Amino acid sequence: MAAVEEEQIVNPWEVASTQGKIDYDKLIDKFGCQRLDNTLIDRVERLTGRPAHVFLRRSVFFAHRDLNDILDAYEKGDKFYLYTGRGPSSEALHLGHLIPFMFTKYLQDAFKVPLVIQLTDDEKCMWKNLSVEESQRLARENAKDIIACGFDISKTFIFSDFDYVGGAFYKNMVKVSKCVTYNKVVGIFGFTGEDHIGKISFPPVQAVPSFPSSFPHLFPGNDSLRCLIPCAIDQDPYFRMTRDVAPRLGYQKPALIESTFFPALQGETGKMSASDPNSAIYVTDSGKDIKTKINKYAFSGGQDSIENHRKYGANLEVDIPFKYLGFFLDDDDELENIRTEYGAGRMLTGDVKKRLTEVLTDIVERHREARAAVTDEMVDAFMAVRPLPNMFS
Amino acid sequence: MAAVEEEQIVNPWEVASTQGKIDYDKLIDKFGCQRLDNTLIDRVERLTGRPAHVFLRRSVFFAHRDLNDILDAYEKGDKFYLYTGRGPSSEALHLGHLIPFMFTKYLQDAFKVPLVIQLTDDEKCMWKNLSVEESQRLARENAKDIIACGFDISKTFIFSDFDYVGGAFYKNMVKVSKCVTYNKVVGIFGFTGEDHIGKISFPPVQAVPSFPSSFPHLFPGNDSLRCLIPCAIDQDPYFRMTRDVAPRLGYQKPALIESTFFPALQGETGKMSASDPNSAIYVTDSGKDIKTKINKYAFSGGQDSIENHRKYGANLEVDIPFKYLGFFLDDDDELENIRTEYGAGRMLTGDVKKRLTEVLTDIVERHREARAAVTDEMVDAFMAVRPLPNMFS
Repeated sequence: MAAVEEEQIVNPWEVASTQGKIDYDKLIDKFGCQRLDNTLIDRVERLTGRPAHVFLRRSVFFAHRDLNDILDAYEKGDKFYLYTGRGPSSEALHLGHLIPFMFTKYLQDAFKVPLVIQLTDDEKCMWKNLSVEESQRLARENAKDIIACGFDISKTFIFSDFDYVGGAFYKNMVKVSKCVTYNKVVGIFGFTGEDHIGKISFPPVQAVPSFPSSFPHLFPGNDSLRCLIPCAIDQDPYFRMTRDVAPRLGYQKPALIESTFFPALQGETGKMSASDPNSAIYVTDSGKDIKTKINKYAFSGGQDSIENHRKYGANLEVDIPFKYLGFFLDDDDELENIRTEYGAGRMLTGDVKKRLTEVLTDIVERHREARAAVTDEMVDAFMAVRPLPNMFS
Repeated sequence: MAAVEEEQIVNPWEVASTQGKIDYDKLIDKFGCQRLDNTLIDRVERLTGRPAHVFLRRSVFFAHRDLNDILDAYEKGDKFYLYTGRGPSSEALHLGHLIPFMFTKYLQDAFKVPLVIQLTDDEKCMWKNLSVEESQRLARENAKDIIACGFDISKTFIFSDFDYVGGAFYKNMVKVSKCVTYNKVVGIFGFTGEDHIGKISFPPVQAVPSFPSSFPHLFPGNDSLRCLIPCAIDQDPYFRMTRDVAPRLGYQKPALIESTFFPALQGETGKMSASDPNSAIYVTDSGKDIKTKINKYAFSGGQDSIENHRKYGANLEVDIPFKYLGFFLDDDDELENIRTEYGAGRMLTGDVKKRLTEVLTDIVERHREARAAVTDEMVDAFMAVRPLPNMFS
C-alpha cells in the first residue's frame, strides 16, 4: 500500500513543503487550531486599551487555541500567565528568533501578567551534538538576548531545564508521561525506533510549564490559573499533546497564540537555517553586514529590468524586502504606500531594500545596546527561583 | 514464523518460568554475568577481616560483574561506594525485601564505604496505579524499614526520585538517554508501542546513581570512584544498559553483586507476590501470624505419612522451611545438622517449621523494635542532601 506523500511537513524539528511555501490554511485544518480573526484582535485592543501589536495587525500571529476563553476570563477579572521558550542551539539569535519574544513582551505589558520562559538546553543537548555544558552556556547567552527584549523582571521567570527540572516540575513530567504512549508520540512527532529515548522522554518537559503547579514558587495553590502560550506554529504538536493530557490530570488546557514562520532572505520556504549565516539577519550583524545581506541575498519580486519593473510592478507575493517590512515597519500608512508604489512599479527594489536596511539596522542597533547592558547578575536575577509578588500589577 | 518461547522470563517487572523454578545457571549465561565463586568469597573475608555474610556463604548472592576489579582496587587503597534501592509499591516489606538491605549493611560495615539508596517512587507511580503523593508517602514509610536495618547515617544517603531528580542527576539522565535507542530498550526491557513514555524514560533514572557525578554533594570531583551495586538478579537489565553506556560517557562501569530470589511460602517459583499476603512473611506480621503462615502455607518437602518420611526423608530441593533456614539461620553447624537429619527422615517437618518460626519471629521482632525507634526526624536526616565527611572512615 503506497503511502500518500505529505505536501508539507511541519513539526518542531522540520519545516518543509513540496510547494515551496507553507500553506497556513491547510496547517490550521490539519492541526485543528483556529484562525485569529479581526473580531478577536479588536477584542484584544478593547481589553488592553492599546492598539494591537504589529504582529497581530499583519497576521504574523495568525492562529490560536482557546484565546477567546482566555479573554472571556480576563474580562471577568481572572488572570492568566504567559509561557514561551527557546531551544538554545546557537550563540547568536536572528530576527526570526526575536519575533515570539517581541510579541510576548507586548502581551506581558498589555495584559500585565507573569511570564515563564523555558530554555530547553536539555532538548538541544539531545538533538544537536552539544555537550551539557555547551548547551547550558548557550542557554545563558540566549537569556541575555531575551532579557534585552525588555521583559519586566518583577513578572518574568527564565529557567534552564538542566537547572530547574526536579521537584514539582518533575512530578508533572511523570504525570504527563503516564498519559502518553510510545505509539502516540510516534503519531505526533514521527519518532522511529532508532531515535534515542531522550527524544521520546522530552515532550513532557516542554508540556509541563503549561501547568501552574510546575512553578510552586510562583503560583502556589493556584492550580486553575490559565496559561497562554505565544509560539510559532511548529510547536503546536507539543501543545496538542499537552491539551489532550491536561483534563486527565485535572489541569486546565493551555491556550495558544501561534505565528507563521519568518522567511529566509532567499525566499519564503519555511524557517531560516542556522547553518547558513547568509539566510538570516543576526542580532550580531553590523550595519554593513545588514546592508550587504539585504542587497546581495534578499529575494526580490522586482522585474529583471527597470523597463519591465515600471511596466509590470513587483511581485509582492514573493518579495522578501517587502515581507520583512511587513514584520518590522510599524507605520501602517508607510507600508500601505510601499505596497501600492512598489506593486505598481513606481518604486524600485533598491528603494525598498534601502528602507528595510534602515529599519533593521535600527532594530538590531537598539537590540545590541540593550544586550550590552545585560549583566551576568541580571541573568542570575531573572533565573532565580523566587516568588514574584507583583506579577499581576 | 513461530517465535521460540522463552523458558524463563526475568526482568525487573516479571519473573516467570515454564519449569516452575528459575534456572540460575542459564540466567548467568543469558545475562553474561559471572558466578560468585569461593575464591572471591575467601578474598572478601581476607580483605575485610571478618567472616563472609551468610548470604555469601549460602550463595544467596551468587553472581557478579567486575567484583574482582572492585576488590583489586580496594586492596590497593582505592575506595568505592555502594548503590542499592527499592521501588516503594507497598506499605509493609516482606522478608525478601529485606535481603538486599541486610546484605548491603554488611558490605557497608565490612568495607567502610558510603552508600546511596534510591527510592524509585517515580517508577512505582508510573507502573502501579499510584498517585505521586501516595508513591512519596510509601517511599518515606519504606525508608523507615530500610533505616531500621541499621545503616550508618554518617555514610548513607537515601533519596526519593521525586525529590532528588534534577541538577547533576538530571544532566546524567539526559546523557544516558542520548546513548540508548528505543529499539535498544525494547530489546532489554520488552516494552511495546502501547507502553507509556514514562516507562521508556525510566531506565536512565535507575542507571545514573551508578555514576558519582550524580551526587555532587557526596563525591565532588571524584568522577572515577567505582560503584558496587548489591541487588537481585532481576535488576541486571538496568545495569547491563548502564555498563554499556558508561564508557561512552567517560564514566566507570558499575560493578554488581547479584542475589537469587527469595522463594514464596508456597514454593520456589520466583519472587513473592505483593498481592497475596499469604505468600510471604511481612515485617509487620505478629509472632502468631508467622507461626500460622509457616504451618499452613510453607510448602513442605516432607513425605505424606510419618512412615514414608522416616523411610524416604524430606525432599530438601523443594522444602521451603529448610530453604528459609538457609537464608536466615546463621549457625552453619545447626543448618548442616538439619540438612542431614531432616533429609534422612529422622527430623520431621513440624520440627523444622518450629525452628524456622523461632528464627523468623526473632528477626521480625527485632526489626519491629528497630523500626518503631525510627522517627520522622531520622528519615529527614538520612534523606537530607548533605556532604558525608566521614563516609570512608
